[in-house]
Amino acid sequence: MSRFMSSRLSTLKPYTPGEQPRGREYIKLNTNESPFPPSENVIKAVNSAAVSELRLYSDPECTELREAIARYTGYQSKNIFVGNGSDEVLSFLFMAYGENGVTYPSVSYGFYKVYCDLYGLEKHEKALREDFTVCPDDYIGGKSLKVIANPNAPTGMALGTDEIERIVRENPDSVVVIDEAYVDFGAESAVGLVKNYPNLAVVQTFSKSRSLAGARLGFCVASEALTDDLNRIKYSNNPYNINRLTLIAGKAAIEDREYFEKCRREIIRVRELFSQQLIERGFAVLKSSANFVFAKSPEIGGKELYLRLKEKGFLIRHFDSDGISDYNRITIGLEDDMRSLISAIDSL
Amino acid sequence: MSRFMSSRLSTLKPYTPGEQPRGREYIKLNTNESPFPPSENVIKAVNSAAVSELRLYSDPECTELREAIARYTGYQSKNIFVGNGSDEVLSFLFMAYGENGVTYPSVSYGFYKVYCDLYGLEKHEKALREDFTVCPDDYIGGKSLKVIANPNAPTGMALGTDEIERIVRENPDSVVVIDEAYVDFGAESAVGLVKNYPNLAVVQTFSKSRSLAGARLGFCVASEALTDDLNRIKYSNNPYNINRLTLIAGKAAIEDREYFEKCRREIIRVRELFSQQLIERGFAVLKSSANFVFAKSPEIGGKELYLRLKEKGFLIRHFDSDGISDYNRITIGLEDDMRSLISAIDSL
Repeated sequence: MSRFMSSRLSTLKPYTPGEQPRGREYIKLNTNESPFPPSENVIKAVNSAAVSELRLYSDPECTELREAIARYTGYQSKNIFVGNGSDEVLSFLFMAYGENGVTYPSVSYGFYKVYCDLYGLEKHEKALREDFTVCPDDYIGGKSLKVIANPNAPTGMALGTDEIERIVRENPDSVVVIDEAYVDFGAESAVGLVKNYPNLAVVQTFSKSRSLAGARLGFCVASEALTDDLNRIKYSNNPYNINRLTLIAGKAAIEDREYFEKCRREIIRVRELFSQQLIERGFAVLKSSANFVFAKSPEIGGKELYLRLKEKGFLIRHFDSDGISDYNRITIGLEDDMRSLISAIDSL
Repeated sequence: MSRFMSSRLSTLKPYTPGEQPRGREYIKLNTNESPFPPSENVIKAVNSAAVSELRLYSDPECTELREAIARYTGYQSKNIFVGNGSDEVLSFLFMAYGENGVTYPSVSYGFYKVYCDLYGLEKHEKALREDFTVCPDDYIGGKSLKVIANPNAPTGMALGTDEIERIVRENPDSVVVIDEAYVDFGAESAVGLVKNYPNLAVVQTFSKSRSLAGARLGFCVASEALTDDLNRIKYSNNPYNINRLTLIAGKAAIEDREYFEKCRREIIRVRELFSQQLIERGFAVLKSSANFVFAKSPEIGGKELYLRLKEKGFLIRHFDSDGISDYNRITIGLEDDMRSLISAIDSL
C-alpha cells in the first residue's frame, strides 16, 4: 500500500476470489462456474459479431439486452438494470442504500462485508440458525439495507418466497436486496414480487446458470425508482459499463430458454446424485438449492480435505471461517467429474 | 429517484455521455472514437477466441494483457493496472487519493467533478489561462489529488513533459494523475517519468488510438505502491473487472504497433488539413494534440452550429458551459467525412 492511500481504505481487507489456476490442469469445482459451454446461439452470435464495430462505444443504455431480460422476467426494460457482473450491481446497491447500515447473514457471500468496508457502512451481521438456515426475523425492522443471498452461499440453503415476501413487506422503510446468483438451481425467485414492492431489488447473474462467468454480466429487477437510482450511480461512474460483445452474448443467452432449462436440470440431477453419494459415505451435506453442495467429511477436516483433493487434481473451495471451517463448498460439474471426485474421496 | 437513495448521492448530477444515436445514420464526430476498425490482429483474435470458455471466469489478474502493456511501456507488469475503460481506472484513483480534495482544470473532462460528487470529495477547480492552456502553477502544493488531462479535453491543448514533471516533482505529498486518453495524437507521454516518481499515475485508454471504445479497456502505469492500492479497491469491488474477450482484444491491439502508428499518423494528418480548412473559413481553432479539434465559428454560435450540422447528418459535440459555449468539439474522422463536413459548413 502507498502512503497516499485514503485513510478509510487503508484498513480494507479485499475479497479473496477462488483460485483461478494457470498451468496445471485441475478439475475445477471451486468457483461455481457451469460445466457446460454457453448456448450455441451465444457462440454463433459472438462469432458473427462485427468486431470492427468495437471502434464505437457500446450502447450505454444497453437497450436490446435490457429488453430481452424484460421479456424473460415479465417486466419492462425500465425495471432492468445491468452491470459488469452482479458484483457491480451489488456494489452500486450498497453505495446507494447502505447509509443506515447493512444487515446480512454472517455466513454468506464474502463480498457483503467488503462492500461495507469499501463504502464505510455499518455492518449488522446476523448469525445463521444452528441448522445453517437464515432466520427471517433477523432481517425485519430498522432502516438498514437488508441483503440476503437466496439460495445462500456457501450453504446452498434457500428461503421460500413467502418468507422473502414477509421480509420485504415488513421493511417498508428500507431496501431489501435478494441476491439470486444461484436461484435457477432449485429455489423460488422473488422476481414476481417486484411489481408489488418498490423497496425490493432482485439481483441475478449470467455467470452460473447461463455459462457466461467470463463475459461478466449481472442484472437487477426492481421498481423504476430503484433502477433510476442505480443509473444515477452508473452515469456518475462508468456510463459504458458493458462492452459490445457481452451485450451480444447476454442477449443470445437469455433468449435460449431451452438450453438454459436443459443445463440447469442436468446440474440439479447430478447434484442430487452426488449429494446422495456423499451421504452414503457419512458426509454431512446441507440441502442445496444451488449448483454446489456444502459438505463435511466424517473423518477429514475441511482444510485437509481441500488440500488433499488439490494434490489429486481437484479444486474445491474451503473457507477458513468460524463455524464452517469443517465444511467445503463443492461446485457441481459434469457427471463424470463428480464420479472421479467420489473415487478420489474414496481413495483418501 | 427513490426515497431510499443515500442523502449524499441524492444531489448527484451524473455525467452526460455524447449521443449514441440509434436509428438515423449520422457521420458521428461527437465522442472521439476512431474512424478506423481495430487492428486485423484484434479481429482475428476475437473471431478465433474459444467462446465456449466464457463459461469460466476471466483471469482476475489480467496477467497476459498486463504483460503486453508492460512490454509496450517499458515497465513491469506490477506497474500496470487495467480497468473496465479508463473511466473505471479514474474512478478508483479518485476513490483512493481524493480524501484531501481534488484539483483539476475547470474546463476539462466533465467526469472529474462527477467523481468528486460521487465520493464526496472537495473540488478545487482551476480556470484555464485566457488562451485555454492549463497553468502548471495552479497544480502545485497542498495535499489534494492533482488531475490533469494531457492533452486536455475539450481543448486538445497539451503541456510538455517538462511542465508535467515539475508538477509531479513539486507535489511530493500528493498523487498526480495524468489522464492521457488522447496522448497518442501528438502530445508527449509522461509514462517515462513513472520510474522516478512514486506519486505519479499515468492513465491511458484503448478507446481512441486503438479503436476499441466498445471493448471497454483502460490502464494506468504507476509505481507498484499505487497499483497495489488500485488492486485493493478492485478486489473490494469487482475482482473480475475485465471480461475474457476484452482481455484477448486488448492484448492483440497493443501488440500491433505498426497499425497503431499508421492510424494515429493518419488522424494527425487529417486533423492538420481539417484545422487549416476551418482557419481559412475564419474559425478560431485551438492547437490540438488530440483526435479532435475545438473550434469557434466566426458567424454561428456554438449551439446553433451543433444543431444545424445535426440536421444535415453530422454529430459534433457542444458543451453548454461558461467560457466555451461558442466552441464545438469535432472528432477527426475519415478524410472524406471531414471533407463532407467542410462542405456542410460552407452551405450554412
